[in-house]
Amino acid sequence: MHFEAPLPLRSGASISGYDLSYETYGTLNADRSNAVMVCHALNASHHVAGVYEGQPDSQGWWDTMIGPGKPVDTERFFVIGVNNLGSCFGSTGPMHPRPGAGGRIYGAEFPVVTVEDWVDSQARLLDALGIDTLAAVMGGSLGGMQALSWTLQHPERVRHAVVVASAPNLTAENIAFNEVARRAIVTDPDFHGGNFYAHGVVPRRGLRIARMIGHITYLSDDVMNEKFGRTLRNPDGLYRYTTQDIEFQIESYLRYQGDKFSEYFDANTYLLITRALDYFDPAREHGGSLRAALARASAKFLLISFKTDWRFSPRRSRELVEALLHNRRDVSYAEIDAPHGHDAFLLEDPRYLDVVRSYFARIADEASHE
Amino acid sequence: MHFEAPLPLRSGASISGYDLSYETYGTLNADRSNAVMVCHALNASHHVAGVYEGQPDSQGWWDTMIGPGKPVDTERFFVIGVNNLGSCFGSTGPMHPRPGAGGRIYGAEFPVVTVEDWVDSQARLLDALGIDTLAAVMGGSLGGMQALSWTLQHPERVRHAVVVASAPNLTAENIAFNEVARRAIVTDPDFHGGNFYAHGVVPRRGLRIARMIGHITYLSDDVMNEKFGRTLRNPDGLYRYTTQDIEFQIESYLRYQGDKFSEYFDANTYLLITRALDYFDPAREHGGSLRAALARASAKFLLISFKTDWRFSPRRSRELVEALLHNRRDVSYAEIDAPHGHDAFLLEDPRYLDVVRSYFARIADEASHE
Repeated sequence: MHFEAPLPLRSGASISGYDLSYETYGTLNADRSNAVMVCHALNASHHVAGVYEGQPDSQGWWDTMIGPGKPVDTERFFVIGVNNLGSCFGSTGPMHPRPGAGGRIYGAEFPVVTVEDWVDSQARLLDALGIDTLAAVMGGSLGGMQALSWTLQHPERVRHAVVVASAPNLTAENIAFNEVARRAIVTDPDFHGGNFYAHGVVPRRGLRIARMIGHITYLSDDVMNEKFGRTLRNPDGLYRYTTQDIEFQIESYLRYQGDKFSEYFDANTYLLITRALDYFDPAREHGGSLRAALARASAKFLLISFKTDWRFSPRRSRELVEALLHNRRDVSYAEIDAPHGHDAFLLEDPRYLDVVRSYFARIADEASHE
Repeated sequence: MHFEAPLPLRSGASISGYDLSYETYGTLNADRSNAVMVCHALNASHHVAGVYEGQPDSQGWWDTMIGPGKPVDTERFFVIGVNNLGSCFGSTGPMHPRPGAGGRIYGAEFPVVTVEDWVDSQARLLDALGIDTLAAVMGGSLGGMQALSWTLQHPERVRHAVVVASAPNLTAENIAFNEVARRAIVTDPDFHGGNFYAHGVVPRRGLRIARMIGHITYLSDDVMNEKFGRTLRNPDGLYRYTTQDIEFQIESYLRYQGDKFSEYFDANTYLLITRALDYFDPAREHGGSLRAALARASAKFLLISFKTDWRFSPRRSRELVEALLHNRRDVSYAEIDAPHGHDAFLLEDPRYLDVVRSYFARIADEASHE
C-alpha cells in the first residue's frame, strides 16, 4: 500500500511517499469488527502465517499461532500482518530510493523511526482498509511494545491487546547488548557510514557478530546446555587446540546463524530497529510513572511472559500487569514455565498456545454477544 | 625468570626459551611454608598488589585482598603473582620473537596453552624459587580454575586452595560469548590472521567489541540498572534520535571501556586466554564425573561465589563443593549476596573479604601448630 502524505515522526522529521507491505488472512466480517493487527519484532515481517504457493519453506514467522483452527483462528478473525517502516522485507526502508532525490538510496539518511511511529503508520493502513476498531492488536517482544503502544496512542481503536514476552522499556543491559551489536556493524569497514549500497558491499562481519549476540541472549543458559553443552564438533571427542577454528558445536551453530542472517538482513535496518527498542519508554513522558502512562489505555489485556526469558523477563511483564491493575484495567496474565528463553514466544508450547487460544475464543464470544 | 628447557604443553607442542614475569610480596619464612600463589584471570597480571614507586595509579588488580594487614596478609604470607604464558604483561606471549626464528614474532603461531600448562609453568617457577609446598593457591574466575587445577596436578604441593567465582568448566553460553568476542577479533581486517604486528596495525575494532561483551556479562542486570539505568548522556533528557551516535550513558561507558582495552590488550592473547577457559574441564578425562576428577585433590578448600554472578554462577561452585564433599575433602563455602555480578570477586565487599581474612588466619594458625 502506497502512502503519499507525509507521516510526522517522533524525531520531528517526516516521511512521505512510502510503501507498507502487508498481508491479510481470513475474511473481514460485515461489521468490520474481527480484525487483528499483528506487530513484528526485529527479524520478522508482514508474512506472519502460512506458506506461499510452491514455496514450502516460506512458513510465516508466527505460523504456530495464526491460521485456520490455530489459537488466532483465521476462520473467525481477519488477521493483518504489516512490515514496519524501515525494515527490509518490502516496506520502505534504508535500501530504497528516497523520493525526489534523483534515485539516491536513503542509506544512513533514513529517518529514525520509533514504536510510536510504526503504530501511527499501522493506523493509517487500517484507515485505508476501512477498519475503525481492532478486535485485537498483538505482538511479542518489540511487537508487544507496539501492541502496548496501540492502546496508548489509539485507545478507542483497540478492544484487546495481547502483549507477549515484552517490557515497558529496555533495561540498561538490553540497551548495552543492542549497542555492542550496533558498534560491530558501524565499525565494519564495509559499512561506509551506512551508505554501503553505493559501494556494492554489505557489512557482513558486523551483521554476523550482531546476530551471534542476539542468538545467545534469546536463548536460556539451560536450553543451550541441553542443545549443545560442551559437545565438540569433531566426533572423536579430542581437542584440536585451535584458537581460530571451531572446536565446539555451539560455535558452529552461532557461525551458521550469523552467516545466514548477514545474507538477508539490512545493516541500517538493524540499527533502526534496535534503536526503536532502546527508545520505547511510555512512562518517560509521565515522570517515569508507568501507572500514569497506562492510564490512557482502555483495552483489555492478555500479557504472557516466559520464566527463562532473561532479555524480557517476567518481572518486566509484571510491572505492566501491576500498572494496568492500578488503573483498574481488565488484565489476564500467564507466566509460562518454558525452558527456551526469549525465543519461547515463537515456539510451539501447548501451555502458551492454549492460553492464547482461550483468550481469542473469549474475544470472539464477546463480539458475538455485542 | 627465564626458562630454557622445553615445557611440554597439553596440545602436544612445547615451548622453550620463555620468560615468566612475576612479583613477590612479603617474606618467605625459614621453613619455606608460607608461600601463596595467586593466579590471574583474563585481563590481569603478576602485579596483584601495591603500587610501583612514583606511579600512584599502578594499583595491583587484587589490592583490596592482598597486602600488609589485608585478608591475605603479606606480613605473614609470601605472595607470588605470576603473569601467564601467552599473556601480554611481561611473560612470553604472541607479541614476542620466537627463539631461533631469526627475530620473527610468534603471532598466530604461539602455541595454544591450557590451564594445566599454566599450572605446570607456575610449578617450575616454584621450583626455581626453592619452594616445595604452597600454603595456598588462590584465584578468581579463570584464576580459580588454575587454583583448582593445582590441587589435581600437584596435590602434594598445595595445602589450601581458594577458588573464587569459578566453575568446573564453562557452560555453552559462556563458550558462546567467548566465541563471539573471538570472531569480532578474527574477522577484523586489521587482524591479518594473527600476524598484525608485521603490518603495524592492531585489530582495535574487534578488541573493542570483545571488551564490550565482556563488560556486559561481568556485571549484573541490577547493577547496570542502578549505575546507568536509562540515563541519557545529554543532560536535557531529550532524545537526539540517532542510530550511530551515543544516546544513553551505558553506551558511552561501554565505548570508553572498549577503547581503553583496545589500547593495551593483545588480540592473540585474547584468543588464547578465552580458549584456555573453554578447554578447562577436569571431569572430561573421567567420563564427565567431577567426583572422579576431584578424587586426586588432597588440599583443603575455600570456595566463594556471588549470587548475581551469571557467568560463573553459584550453581557451578556448588557442583565443586558437592564433588569435593563426596571425596570427603575439607571444604568451606561462602555464597555472597553481592549485587555486582562476576565483577564482585575484584571488588571491596566486607563480607567477602572477611571470609577470606578468616580463612587465611586459619591457614596461619594451622602452620604455627605444625
